[in-house]
Amino acid sequence: MSKLNVSTEYRIAPDPGNPHLTRKVTGMDHLGHETEISVVEERPLTIYLNRQEIVTAMTIGDYPEYLALGFLKNQGMLSADDVVTRVDYDEEVETVVVRTEVETSHEEKLQKKTRTSGCAVGTVFGDMMAGLEGVTLPQTPVKTSWLYKLAHEINRTPSLYLEAGAIHGTVLCQEDRPLVYMEDVGRHNAVDKIAGWMLSEGAAASDKILYTTGRLTSEMVIKTAMMGIPVLASRSGFTAWGVEIARQVGLTLIGRMRGQRFVCLAGEERLVRDVDPAAMPEEDRKHRRKSAD
Amino acid sequence: MSKLNVSTEYRIAPDPGNPHLTRKVTGMDHLGHETEISVVEERPLTIYLNRQEIVTAMTIGDYPEYLALGFLKNQGMLSADDVVTRVDYDEEVETVVVRTEVETSHEEKLQKKTRTSGCAVGTVFGDMMAGLEGVTLPQTPVKTSWLYKLAHEINRTPSLYLEAGAIHGTVLCQEDRPLVYMEDVGRHNAVDKIAGWMLSEGAAASDKILYTTGRLTSEMVIKTAMMGIPVLASRSGFTAWGVEIARQVGLTLIGRMRGQRFVCLAGEERLVRDVDPAAMPEEDRKHRRKSAD
Repeated sequence: MSKLNVSTEYRIAPDPGNPHLTRKVTGMDHLGHETEISVVEERPLTIYLNRQEIVTAMTIGDYPEYLALGFLKNQGMLSADDVVTRVDYDEEVETVVVRTEVETSHEEKLQKKTRTSGCAVGTVFGDMMAGLEGVTLPQTPVKTSWLYKLAHEINRTPSLYLEAGAIHGTVLCQEDRPLVYMEDVGRHNAVDKIAGWMLSEGAAASDKILYTTGRLTSEMVIKTAMMGIPVLASRSGFTAWGVEIARQVGLTLIGRMRGQRFVCLAGEERLVRDVDPAAMPEEDRKHRRKSAD
Repeated sequence: MSKLNVSTEYRIAPDPGNPHLTRKVTGMDHLGHETEISVVEERPLTIYLNRQEIVTAMTIGDYPEYLALGFLKNQGMLSADDVVTRVDYDEEVETVVVRTEVETSHEEKLQKKTRTSGCAVGTVFGDMMAGLEGVTLPQTPVKTSWLYKLAHEINRTPSLYLEAGAIHGTVLCQEDRPLVYMEDVGRHNAVDKIAGWMLSEGAAASDKILYTTGRLTSEMVIKTAMMGIPVLASRSGFTAWGVEIARQVGLTLIGRMRGQRFVCLAGEERLVRDVDPAAMPEEDRKHRRKSAD
């Protein structure tokens, strides 16, 4: 695929050609013939905050430092006041240590026995909901022309998904430009890597849009809101609680984005319909990305 | 859809008409017109083992008792020796308590700070891998004609997925018959509900096949193996670690099942190719289920 199709505005784009992220595996096809396919890598990464072992994440392993930073941030273990002094990744022992100027004790948090399950990352549920109180998201307008352009570009960006399947992508965007496209075996990892990048770069959240291939579950909505991003969009569907929370925190929630169609179930007031959807081309079948519905 | 299309062999089939599982939500479409869509419910369910609070799971809420039982079993918190005396679901406080004859202390397990993330349910990672040692799966043969019939039937079964999207399904099958089709916002919940049903019914695992719409991640493979089921199949793709573990424990792992095609990357020896794939009809577009690739 010609590189000219890929926006040069990506700060980080998927790297499907990276040999470390996929592996060729040989098996048998339906005809009983030997076949070789590409499958995505998945490795454990143990994350430490100072001397405290926090979690082992299963990840494709492309941005361990961003994943660690973003995970800790999104879990509320790195506050706005915490100063990160260093992030060290040791490939041999598959460990990353995030160090802060002042060591805070998170032991009581870890001992808290409530954690979520069901394809929702092991966040402490009570903390998640509590962390939302007092969150206000900026009223940054979002033009529908931006959304259409973003979806169009993201669907055409060469990705591990297209190469090897079995993966979720989340893209941090600014207006009509995709900036940081992260992929991983779990969509929560992809979001955490973006949060880690934003923290590293000191990037603002108020003028950003988060686009994901995954379902708009309550946890996705909560993470987006806690990252301070006011707009979350996806090809996929919603859950009722995700919608409720989005309405509660005033997030703009757009789902079932395919071609010219979409549904907005929260934060409608940010939307500026600046183009006639009928003028938008129908989705090109070839580039139609399967929804993680 | 005519009920005649649905196999009468289902012990549990999806219940898309169940008003408790979906909700109508009103929003705006791309044309700025009001639109009403169906979205899947998602509620917290707090699971207790005796007096110990274990986890809060986000679930659609259809089988809280099975979810609790299966979750605890798959986490290794209910051993083969444990006798479950009662399972009590309290809808008002969204809690389910599983009681055993003898109370075992799991506090040290909960305090273990290693847990997985990245769209892998909060299992204790070290325990997961340890639990696999000594697992041997029976050499039950599996005919490809069964797999084709299963996929065909499952894809045509009315489901929440078809109704409202944003959901994962996993089906426990026996030979060419789908038995228990569970759906949930997280595929790990769907698997746990099946494990709970099997425990309740005292159902054998050795002659079963697990079919899922989700990706064949390491955690899916581990759960299947620990449930004693020797065959795991999916429309979706693989991860390298999932393949490795399947090969290690001797599980038959079949992915990318679409129409007549599939790829088997582990446990090939169980496969009995008893039909000519060319004789299989190509997938009917109308019923083509999107892969959670």
